[in-house]
Amino acid sequence: MYDVNALRKDFPILSRQVNGKPLVYLDNGASAQKPQVVIEAVTKGYAEEYANVHRGLHYLSNLATDKYEGVREVIARFLGAPDPEEIVYTTGTTMGINLVAYGWAMPNLQAGDEIILSVMEHHANIVPWHFLRERQGVVIKWVDCDATGALDPQAVLDAITPKTKLIAITQMSNVLGTVVDVKTICHGAREKGVPVLVDGSQSAVHMPVNVADMGCDFFAITGHKLYGPSASGAIWISRERMDEMRPFMGGGDMIREVTRDAVTYNDPPMKFEAGTPGIVQQIGLGVALDYMMTVGMENIAAHETALRDYAVERLGGLNWLQVQGTAPNKGAIFSFTMDGAGHAHDISTVLDKKGVAVRAGQHCAGPLMEHMGVAATCRASFAMYNTTEEVDALVDALELAHDLFC
Amino acid sequence: MYDVNALRKDFPILSRQVNGKPLVYLDNGASAQKPQVVIEAVTKGYAEEYANVHRGLHYLSNLATDKYEGVREVIARFLGAPDPEEIVYTTGTTMGINLVAYGWAMPNLQAGDEIILSVMEHHANIVPWHFLRERQGVVIKWVDCDATGALDPQAVLDAITPKTKLIAITQMSNVLGTVVDVKTICHGAREKGVPVLVDGSQSAVHMPVNVADMGCDFFAITGHKLYGPSASGAIWISRERMDEMRPFMGGGDMIREVTRDAVTYNDPPMKFEAGTPGIVQQIGLGVALDYMMTVGMENIAAHETALRDYAVERLGGLNWLQVQGTAPNKGAIFSFTMDGAGHAHDISTVLDKKGVAVRAGQHCAGPLMEHMGVAATCRASFAMYNTTEEVDALVDALELAHDLFC
Repeated sequence: MYDVNALRKDFPILSRQVNGKPLVYLDNGASAQKPQVVIEAVTKGYAEEYANVHRGLHYLSNLATDKYEGVREVIARFLGAPDPEEIVYTTGTTMGINLVAYGWAMPNLQAGDEIILSVMEHHANIVPWHFLRERQGVVIKWVDCDATGALDPQAVLDAITPKTKLIAITQMSNVLGTVVDVKTICHGAREKGVPVLVDGSQSAVHMPVNVADMGCDFFAITGHKLYGPSASGAIWISRERMDEMRPFMGGGDMIREVTRDAVTYNDPPMKFEAGTPGIVQQIGLGVALDYMMTVGMENIAAHETALRDYAVERLGGLNWLQVQGTAPNKGAIFSFTMDGAGHAHDISTVLDKKGVAVRAGQHCAGPLMEHMGVAATCRASFAMYNTTEEVDALVDALELAHDLFC
Repeated sequence: MYDVNALRKDFPILSRQVNGKPLVYLDNGASAQKPQVVIEAVTKGYAEEYANVHRGLHYLSNLATDKYEGVREVIARFLGAPDPEEIVYTTGTTMGINLVAYGWAMPNLQAGDEIILSVMEHHANIVPWHFLRERQGVVIKWVDCDATGALDPQAVLDAITPKTKLIAITQMSNVLGTVVDVKTICHGAREKGVPVLVDGSQSAVHMPVNVADMGCDFFAITGHKLYGPSASGAIWISRERMDEMRPFMGGGDMIREVTRDAVTYNDPPMKFEAGTPGIVQQIGLGVALDYMMTVGMENIAAHETALRDYAVERLGGLNWLQVQGTAPNKGAIFSFTMDGAGHAHDISTVLDKKGVAVRAGQHCAGPLMEHMGVAATCRASFAMYNTTEEVDALVDALELAHDLFC
């Protein structure tokens, strides 16, 4: 039995007020709130158990190292990855994708080689490939979604040519909530010898993920969206692709030996992790993922599906509201514009006065905005702790905004 | 009046025991402990005031953004930087130097161009330049320190040739404590048109820094050594050098517009900051730097100088101990080996049993170890909260270790 009200008590910020109203936090697509167990792990990490990891032999350093390194196993379990040594720590998906762009694509791709992206990608999964286009002549090929926001996996596979070196695609649109059938894409691409990077920033928050079953080559997650600390994260990289990569950042930990004339590198995953890492953040991320797995990813998904259905019904009753994205099985993310409202920012400002936190703008998805023909949208994005009453609060606030603007 | 015992009460971990003994934390060169105000700022950041920064218009996002962006001014003040817009946020010095290597050096340096390093550099200030050597034929030129660990600034300036494009040098050796006269180097290099990157990882912890007076082009700091959260940090970059840089990581925030065919970039400093940043970490770093400035950098430096003098005297009385580095005005960092002890690791293990935390190994300084002719050392590194009694505890533990090994 999923007791959302009990679960909400685990998140201290959810009991606060904003502008004199109870906080209705619907900005989870941008970042999620943190349960008390994560906050306590961070506090304890600094107040009782802090030292730098690795290379130390004293008690606190060993303790911090054990806790920090132990998180690889938690992440591997969370992602269904066969081996914790395939988990590379990052500060989030942006760094994870840049690691692939600099460490794998840059040395291996030539001018004229092609990378396939969907039009729904987040800028984090676009700009690193634009760098390769600008700097070494790589060609970006785009695959569109349809009018509902659905993406045909076959359209992605059909875009493959002999020049295709990578497909980089999101598993869940951060704007529309569209869930992409990445498994079909990965298996089809594998038959043609094309690696696939999956941006799991949104999807891993809302559904069970299994990278082995999916068959991808890279799977990036970001801790702050997964109820973990800011600047925590990881990327799963298949052993096969790791072997093709050179290091990204240089510094301590990622080396075996440094002399005046030469440098040799550590084995993966440390080869891709330079310098003092986000020790306490990664420990907190492990606690966050354990918390999610205890609640149960299937349970979280079922709760959010019910929330989505309720929100579809309630928002569908507002005939002056245009919701973008109606793909089947979409996640509980709703982007919308409103008749009469000049700008999405105006709507979000009114909602905020009622304590309802949503985001307004391009949502780091310029090409999708252009494809949809909108300059900006408001976005309400739900998480495991949201309730149907909060959907009602959103609708009430939207009605107020509509009254104001029309 | 510097009341070290009152100050120690601000750091909760310092009252804990390790192996049944009071913790004597002398591993500050690797990472520093955190005052309660920093821990509380982090806790509050997650429990009461958390949201993603920028692009949000709701109350919590605005609050987090104001606090996060406000830290640039604190860092600028801490570093004597003329303009907070010249402060680029990083996850630490390693990322800061890699940002310079990828963003400035990679597009501007050609095969045969020279970078001057001192033999005392940390791997974080060596490996990124080895990348440029391996990948595009840049030449690394090394300048040695003398037998005391002192570095003649004129020797660095004498190494400049018409091919020299960068001097990258530490202001304080993390192994020897040597303080380098970077101001003389910067001013001499400027006359010859050579930019200087100063690695301030260690120095900024222990002495007042003023980048404007110093005359450097890049100055990198790392938050976790500055009593701040892990994975916090910044680099100051002169406007002149910023204008010569291309972006490093690609993603949200660092762009102005992204389309299918093109990307335009944000203005600095955001041009160099991609994706959701370490929001709460940077807020914590601001609190840490404010804490240091309230104690007073001159006061911290004076306290640590007294500690250094006391340690020099006490360690000097152990005629079976070889302390590396006796340069005038060195910081309170002591690397040593011991007659009869097979390996530095064995010493540190014995010290740990007495609650004394030191580090053993190469300290991420392979070339310096080779130059000194040692495989590894133990290192005791002091901070603002250490006491003369802790020097005594170190000496007692060393005497025990010597008894055991000899």
